[in-house]
Amino acid sequence: MIGIFDSGIGGLTVVKALTEQLPGYDILYFGDTARTPYGTKSPETVTRYALRNAEFLLRKGAKLIIVACNTASSVATDQLTEKFDVPVFEVITPAAELSVKTSEKLRVGVIGTRATVNSGIYEKKIRAMNADAKVWSVPCPLIVSLVEEGWLRKPETRMIIKKYLHPLKVRQIDTLILGCTHYPVVKDIIQRKIGKRVKLIDSSVAVAGKVKGFLEENPGKEALLSQTGKSLFFVSDITAQFEHTSKNILRKKIRLEHVRI
Amino acid sequence: MIGIFDSGIGGLTVVKALTEQLPGYDILYFGDTARTPYGTKSPETVTRYALRNAEFLLRKGAKLIIVACNTASSVATDQLTEKFDVPVFEVITPAAELSVKTSEKLRVGVIGTRATVNSGIYEKKIRAMNADAKVWSVPCPLIVSLVEEGWLRKPETRMIIKKYLHPLKVRQIDTLILGCTHYPVVKDIIQRKIGKRVKLIDSSVAVAGKVKGFLEENPGKEALLSQTGKSLFFVSDITAQFEHTSKNILRKKIRLEHVRI
Repeated sequence: MIGIFDSGIGGLTVVKALTEQLPGYDILYFGDTARTPYGTKSPETVTRYALRNAEFLLRKGAKLIIVACNTASSVATDQLTEKFDVPVFEVITPAAELSVKTSEKLRVGVIGTRATVNSGIYEKKIRAMNADAKVWSVPCPLIVSLVEEGWLRKPETRMIIKKYLHPLKVRQIDTLILGCTHYPVVKDIIQRKIGKRVKLIDSSVAVAGKVKGFLEENPGKEALLSQTGKSLFFVSDITAQFEHTSKNILRKKIRLEHVRI
Repeated sequence: MIGIFDSGIGGLTVVKALTEQLPGYDILYFGDTARTPYGTKSPETVTRYALRNAEFLLRKGAKLIIVACNTASSVATDQLTEKFDVPVFEVITPAAELSVKTSEKLRVGVIGTRATVNSGIYEKKIRAMNADAKVWSVPCPLIVSLVEEGWLRKPETRMIIKKYLHPLKVRQIDTLILGCTHYPVVKDIIQRKIGKRVKLIDSSVAVAGKVKGFLEENPGKEALLSQTGKSLFFVSDITAQFEHTSKNILRKKIRLEHVRI
């Protein structure tokens, strides 16, 4: 099974991208809804949670792990890779690579949680790939709350997104990384506010492409992944709101199973 | 010591009210910032956290406990009172009592987190005190995020608050309970949007008054509380943002100590 974890149900955007690019593979999802969000917490706390989440997925039979959460990817990947033997994918590198390929003027914007932006990881990765690239990052913490409240069509959401994107618009970026699993849900508004010529990089789609490439090149690893058409969704807390948001993301109802870890 | 716990640092509004009404008493504060917020989580999960928080305070020497968090007060008070021998105060009853005393038309509005509003506890308490009272409750989950982001003077904050309060304005309430520790921070905006004739009930101030009355009537319990001028503030996670918010609430810098529980 492909194991995916996230701070909450936002990581279902990765499940969606994965089932589009790699249909048929069994998926094991864990959303840490009892401790969500991660984006406002410290690197130490997020790393502790990430290690526990990965252990849970491995115990349940995952043979490959995707860290869907940008915040956890930013601060915990090194420790996850070091500690576990299975391939671990995070969402930062694929999005960074795609942005460098996509950006003609090498002027890249990044939006993410406060923890992701503070980590400086996108700048570091992108500039390691191309030292000429210019990268500007803006923390947009309120977008997570707006999406979780289902305020997808409210004028306040449009205003807040416009305000957040203003400094990136001024810098005339031509590529924008959506550095948080919640952001693809309001992709339309983001596109309208940043301008239609700016290319959006969805880290969910980027990581799914990366995993696909890896499995094509590593048939040994691919053979370990079951394809029985089963997907399991676990969360550490169940609320009506989360079931609602999961439907907003996947456009279908799924059964969230409660597990205490 | 007086032990106070909250889902995060919002409960510092209770510390503020307490030091105004009961100066000199030693305070032990615990903010569960590693799991914050509680208002979007299930009653079972919030109760589990609340019991653990209270155990921590008792272990550290608290002789009286105040549940500063409205969400935890709404769903966990019965179990806290049952399990522990010390007096346990929650923020719902004092605010409900004060609203019944204050409201001339007996038309009371309540704003709170989704979990608090879903629990229906304010309606139940107020109507048990006066069956003629009419109570309308509105969940305002985004206000917590706006306060934690420090967006205290932004037009978007005013717009969102106005939108939330609209259904209560239509009902012509004359009293409004601020049913979440974060709301007093934006009290001015709330007052302006609901109208200056509506009286605001701050649950922090209400619970401090309740504890004061209890100590006057129970000198035996009062004698157990130390008054050495020491206050200790513990949190389960430390971030720059939380230190910033704590300063916004208390108007002074405090030392937040990290503890893993």
